[in-house]
Amino acid sequence: MIGKLIEGIRRTEAPIVVGLDPMLSYVPEFQKKAAFDQYGETLEGAAEAIWQFNKGIVDAVADLIPAVKPQIAMYEQFGLPGMQAFHRTVQYCKEKGLVVIGDIKRGDIGSTSEAYAVGHIGKVAVGSKAYYGFDEDFVTVNPYLGSDGVKPFVKICKEEDRGIFVLVKTSNPSSGEFQDRLVDGRPLYEIVGEKVAEWGSETMDGDYSNVGAVVGATYPEQGKALRKIMPKTFILVPGYGAQGGKGADLVHFFNEDGLGAIINSSRGIIAAYRQEQYASYGEHGYADASRAAVLAMKEDISQALQNR
Amino acid sequence: MIGKLIEGIRRTEAPIVVGLDPMLSYVPEFQKKAAFDQYGETLEGAAEAIWQFNKGIVDAVADLIPAVKPQIAMYEQFGLPGMQAFHRTVQYCKEKGLVVIGDIKRGDIGSTSEAYAVGHIGKVAVGSKAYYGFDEDFVTVNPYLGSDGVKPFVKICKEEDRGIFVLVKTSNPSSGEFQDRLVDGRPLYEIVGEKVAEWGSETMDGDYSNVGAVVGATYPEQGKALRKIMPKTFILVPGYGAQGGKGADLVHFFNEDGLGAIINSSRGIIAAYRQEQYASYGEHGYADASRAAVLAMKEDISQALQNR
Repeated sequence: MIGKLIEGIRRTEAPIVVGLDPMLSYVPEFQKKAAFDQYGETLEGAAEAIWQFNKGIVDAVADLIPAVKPQIAMYEQFGLPGMQAFHRTVQYCKEKGLVVIGDIKRGDIGSTSEAYAVGHIGKVAVGSKAYYGFDEDFVTVNPYLGSDGVKPFVKICKEEDRGIFVLVKTSNPSSGEFQDRLVDGRPLYEIVGEKVAEWGSETMDGDYSNVGAVVGATYPEQGKALRKIMPKTFILVPGYGAQGGKGADLVHFFNEDGLGAIINSSRGIIAAYRQEQYASYGEHGYADASRAAVLAMKEDISQALQNR
Repeated sequence: MIGKLIEGIRRTEAPIVVGLDPMLSYVPEFQKKAAFDQYGETLEGAAEAIWQFNKGIVDAVADLIPAVKPQIAMYEQFGLPGMQAFHRTVQYCKEKGLVVIGDIKRGDIGSTSEAYAVGHIGKVAVGSKAYYGFDEDFVTVNPYLGSDGVKPFVKICKEEDRGIFVLVKTSNPSSGEFQDRLVDGRPLYEIVGEKVAEWGSETMDGDYSNVGAVVGATYPEQGKALRKIMPKTFILVPGYGAQGGKGADLVHFFNEDGLGAIINSSRGIIAAYRQEQYASYGEHGYADASRAAVLAMKEDISQALQNR
């Protein structure tokens, strides 16, 4: 599956993933009104609003990017109707030819991790049949429980040609609280990074592994160190844009081949119309504003990579 | 909310939580057949089977125990119908007066963690209205992302009088891979434990905090150390029974007041009828077998606490 993502990056010349993390407050008033007129101010109404919002953005940017990353929490908060909107979003993006990275940050032990894996990137058996549940291409995985939490995901990656991105060094301010603690003189995230490389060696797809890593754009120096520790690991890099990461911070996440990293922006793209820079698009042009923001991000990253 | 759990433990004299983690292979054939006859071998059929299975067990044991812990992965694997079965199980258990601990192991950053928190233990705003999504009483939380991943849950705990259990030292064999690494000469899980005590100090409910911890029964010595580090923290202890933990291993998880811990058993209770010891109950008596297994577990723990 990492091969399919790389193919998409090459085709679009954009190592970019758009984070579909729709807060209800990002949805333009006209779209909320339409959804609430139809379903009332209900969970169903909220789910319809975020689905329509997503659809508009996906239609506007699908030709520019290889992948999207829906953040399941933003759907799960609306209960069952929200989960339905998540599923619908995943299906729609796949129909559009996009690689879908489910940002689910699941992780448990043994058969429980396997249940998450079959539900999100595999098939679950029901009697003599088998079904895809949420059916993403990749999911993010939390490593705190160790190898027997992660390996069931790796097993499904191999069986189904799917992939995972394991949290190594997250983009948030307090990520260092545990992740940076020194173990034998080295930060914990490096030790996790080594395990990611090890887990990934079992499921190579061309030059890269189907087991990737998450390393925040907000920590470029750590990204540089981790790039060396995990040379065949694709790095999913959140934190660009709204969280403060800039193109110039990102160059060390890439390998010499110009690959090895894909940069995520969520709010900076999907809520672009609320920024001063794109305000002229107005509410009704929110999707076009997102398209303009993707083009600007593509240019920023392209420049940074040329100047490195 | 921890006060409500303690009240239930006192009433039932059972510091026991039954893990509702229904693998389809645990569901008796007659129940699977009934569900598949109605819905076919579909995700809906699987969801119906695990719901009916759960209902039988809950009806049989609800008077004996204060709480249940549905493991959401076992539902999520069946996609949307599975999530519906999870929601239905949560609602039914609450109607029966049980405290519901959603074993969801979520964790993200900032507004994303808040979305999980409002979706599972709080209300989500939709226009001028607000709705409960999955509506558990407690959820489990993964701490790898640090304080700004956990604090949004703590905020909702305070607003809604709910609770969380933060993963500190998990019960699985490879939990030590990262959790046991020495930081300044001390294992990482102790450092996480200290943070749990700190986060919990903001939301006390009587003698204990609404912020609890997860520490595996399979690690009694670590439990002893963590009991001292987190004196006002309730410990949710998985790993009893099928995973190898015994009553005698558990005494150090409790405080002198006889409180401070609640022991989970999943497979050992819900699939009791498949064990030699309870085989005479047969498939149709699976729920009665679960009741017998709860009574045996209660006796085992009670003896161990008396003999300490």
